Amino acid sequence: MEIKLVQKVMKVNDELAQGVRKRLRAAGVACVNMMSAPGSGKTSLIEAALRHCGGAPRIGVIEGDPDTTLDAERIAACGVPVVQINTDGGCHLEANLVGRALGDLDLDALDILLIENVGNLVCPVGFDLGEDKRVAVVSVTEGHDKPAKYPKLFRGADLVVLNKADLLPYVDFDMAFFRDTVRRLNPGVLMLDMSCRTGDGVDAWVAWLRETAAAKNFV
Amino acid sequence: MEIKLVQKVMKVNDELAQGVRKRLRAAGVACVNMMSAPGSGKTSLIEAALRHCGGAPRIGVIEGDPDTTLDAERIAACGVPVVQINTDGGCHLEANLVGRALGDLDLDALDILLIENVGNLVCPVGFDLGEDKRVAVVSVTEGHDKPAKYPKLFRGADLVVLNKADLLPYVDFDMAFFRDTVRRLNPGVLMLDMSCRTGDGVDAWVAWLRETAAAKNFV
Repeated sequence: MEIKLVQKVMKVNDELAQGVRKRLRAAGVACVNMMSAPGSGKTSLIEAALRHCGGAPRIGVIEGDPDTTLDAERIAACGVPVVQINTDGGCHLEANLVGRALGDLDLDALDILLIENVGNLVCPVGFDLGEDKRVAVVSVTEGHDKPAKYPKLFRGADLVVLNKADLLPYVDFDMAFFRDTVRRLNPGVLMLDMSCRTGDGVDAWVAWLRETAAAKNFV
Repeated sequence: MEIKLVQKVMKVNDELAQGVRKRLRAAGVACVNMMSAPGSGKTSLIEAALRHCGGAPRIGVIEGDPDTTLDAERIAACGVPVVQINTDGGCHLEANLVGRALGDLDLDALDILLIENVGNLVCPVGFDLGEDKRVAVVSVTEGHDKPAKYPKLFRGADLVVLNKADLLPYVDFDMAFFRDTVRRLNPGVLMLDMSCRTGDGVDAWVAWLRETAAAKNFV
């Protein structure tokens, strides 16, 4: 009975996610679901893109957090449309929350929608939000073993960003172990080293976003 | 109906947790539930305690992870009893898993049991595992806003460890904001800065574990 209930919840979410996807595609807006542990730098990645992209692509943001509007305030300060979803302690975003948030965005004014999921390497992975692409972010301070310990996120990612690369000299991070694990889980996935603090890698991140925004018809 | 089911799950967990608590107290073993984001350094904290405590208190460990036995292998290398719980992708430990793991430990040979929960700032918080004390671990690289964004964990913690303090010079961490938030959420809670890498603060951490192990009768 519990299993049946879970299946029903997932089925409803999948249907709602398809609705989100349809609305976004009709409006010509690409959608990216960004997932990571708490504090890996998802908000900083979005800020870096906004500062470097010069308005192309036109980016909108949905911020998911269990509490506070701290992240949405950071994004709003960059002068782009942002909607905060507070999950009231909940551990992940679901498609119904994203669907409601779409009503607060002018989709015609956007090329790409970035959804920052709740900081959590486990629960968000199971929930389709209507996105076209998934980005997994991990920071070097979290350790090279994260993909091995939380494989599902990395298996389904279209881009794996290794953030805080400026801290590599100060931590024990086995780069070969990290990359080998990611490649084993997800052969051919794009990997990008970056540092939001120094700006290294931000060009490549913005280039990926432009390419994603340009490819309006995803398989 | 969904809410009723959740309530039932929590009620069953609470009953099982009371059973775990009873068994541990009967054996004179204190129990600590350690929670943090992925990669904050829970395993390193346990390793540091094991290296510094010289066998007093006698520590046993339960390791919770969605996948792999990497952490349990690190603890086993320190020569103490360890049981790995793989949640098969699950986002938190529950009392029934801990109860089963107790069967693989010789409780008479222990003074204190450290349970390393799944790396997750949200889901583990709701589940009593039968512990006497809760430790929240956060690393400086995750940012000073984590207690504000994930308040439940910090509200219920008996000890808040700020780890990776050696990286403070290389990150933008507002210590006053962090401490003020923790104090607002949990006035009087003990806070401890440490670095498993340099060893700073490990003495105080071991002292807290000794005190916890000595106080066998918790309220």
